Amino acid sequence: MAKYVFGVDIGGTTVKIGYFDTEGTLIEKWEIPTVKDNNGAKILPDVAESIKAKMAEKNMAKEDVEGVGIGVPGPVDDDGNVLKAANLGWGVFSVKNTMEDLLGLKVSAGNDANVAALGEMWKGGAEGYSNVVMVTLGTGVGGGIILKGKILNGSNGSAGEIGHIHVNDDEEDVCGCGNKGCLEQYSSATGITRIANKILNSSDEKSVLRDGDVNAKTIFDAVKAGDALADKVAKVYGKYLGDALACISAVVNPEVICVGGGVSKAGEVVLDYVKPHYVKNVFHGSRDTAFVLAKLGNDAGIYGAAKLVIGD
Amino acid sequence: MAKYVFGVDIGGTTVKIGYFDTEGTLIEKWEIPTVKDNNGAKILPDVAESIKAKMAEKNMAKEDVEGVGIGVPGPVDDDGNVLKAANLGWGVFSVKNTMEDLLGLKVSAGNDANVAALGEMWKGGAEGYSNVVMVTLGTGVGGGIILKGKILNGSNGSAGEIGHIHVNDDEEDVCGCGNKGCLEQYSSATGITRIANKILNSSDEKSVLRDGDVNAKTIFDAVKAGDALADKVAKVYGKYLGDALACISAVVNPEVICVGGGVSKAGEVVLDYVKPHYVKNVFHGSRDTAFVLAKLGNDAGIYGAAKLVIGD
Repeated sequence: MAKYVFGVDIGGTTVKIGYFDTEGTLIEKWEIPTVKDNNGAKILPDVAESIKAKMAEKNMAKEDVEGVGIGVPGPVDDDGNVLKAANLGWGVFSVKNTMEDLLGLKVSAGNDANVAALGEMWKGGAEGYSNVVMVTLGTGVGGGIILKGKILNGSNGSAGEIGHIHVNDDEEDVCGCGNKGCLEQYSSATGITRIANKILNSSDEKSVLRDGDVNAKTIFDAVKAGDALADKVAKVYGKYLGDALACISAVVNPEVICVGGGVSKAGEVVLDYVKPHYVKNVFHGSRDTAFVLAKLGNDAGIYGAAKLVIGD
Repeated sequence: MAKYVFGVDIGGTTVKIGYFDTEGTLIEKWEIPTVKDNNGAKILPDVAESIKAKMAEKNMAKEDVEGVGIGVPGPVDDDGNVLKAANLGWGVFSVKNTMEDLLGLKVSAGNDANVAALGEMWKGGAEGYSNVVMVTLGTGVGGGIILKGKILNGSNGSAGEIGHIHVNDDEEDVCGCGNKGCLEQYSSATGITRIANKILNSSDEKSVLRDGDVNAKTIFDAVKAGDALADKVAKVYGKYLGDALACISAVVNPEVICVGGGVSKAGEVVLDYVKPHYVKNVFHGSRDTAFVLAKLGNDAGIYGAAKLVIGD
């Protein structure tokens, strides 16, 4: 019986790779650079070589390996086809088939944000649940939806794009997606900073934020220190995220909402600003949905990728 | 091999029952009254008697019947347990097990709005699709979400409650669910009428709506006749429904949105007011989602119930 499983998380600058036992214990992890030349043609061969080298080093036979799961920064359909990953230079092709040809092992592929959600469900903040909404508050707002233990990819790999839920008709700035008023413009690390700078620039109100760097960390530090202006910023963040999550719950009725990404390092305070808006506006059948913080940090992707191939 | 399947749609005043061949052709349909005395204790026995009588009349053996599907006006979980149906007096119990004991046939159960969505996917406006968002614009706004051909029930049967997506922070009236600013308050037949009366009462603007009954039908008739005030009403309806559908698509990325219910009898005009808002605010991966009108009317429930047991 297979003893090991590989999880791969392909990012724009590095590829994270880990191997696990089939119970989900991470045994070793490492990184290789993401070589994007020639439309990213070397990325999968490089990953395959790295996995083969690790198998040789550890004397693993193919029979010892359950398979390889891969998270990709772009939409991926249920069959393991990436539908474009602009950040890597990739167009449309089967990550699953390509990698299976390179390795002779079973391969599964998914979108990186969705795969991270699966990781948090398997061994992270949402462990023990099977219906999970994961929100990753980083440079953008990533989302992943797990229903009955499986990733929801949607009809063309665009499910769980919760950072692009429209939350504000009055926004004048354009989101990275081309729309105006997306959740990501308020509740990502970038969005929170943007709101803080807007408020700072529109008044002379005193704030510790005037004395140094303005970013998600310093903003939530200021919130914890009782800074009134930072509190206003956090209220904007929390209102839009709470409203969006209430909408998501009316649609999929999850057991738990798991909040991760860099912003979530501030701790429970990031939930405290969200929950009142959620509870106020959500349909009563989802009012008791649990809120948890993610636990796996940057490893969520390799955990989820490993689970992807085990669960297949 | 089984040749027939029964579909049952339990409503507050009547129970609709139909039998179909397993390809989905409706052979005969009829209704019986919903007897709500004694917390609805007679409802399922009455349905069972009616099905047994039909089987006797048509000389059907049990082996001829694939099973019985049932739509219930309340949340139902994946195992066929109703979690409350206030309208019938029902608390928590297994509709599936109770009905299987009464009939000795395979039984599946689902929420009525979800089951109607399945019906439209099987033989109605969304035929040929397998990822469907169904919106039923009636007294309320009902919703049903079909993913890969299966109903999404959610963790406690409260998925697809899209009528209670919060769309307006400034609403002062309370929705039937207890919240304020739910989609249902603007885009249901009742909601459209409410908005029309508000606009009529707040100005002296001329409108054909001042000369007779104000309801969803007369409002959309006035829209088609070029009435400027009715156009304003339809714009409110369309803005909130379009925004809510854009949000839903960011979450589940459907292939098609199917609009049904009494309001949809007005025809394509009900979509014309929704699409521009949807296209403006939806994530680009779901921008090409198709919009269709439902086709099965009040029979969607019995079609979907029949499909529920075939697809199980």
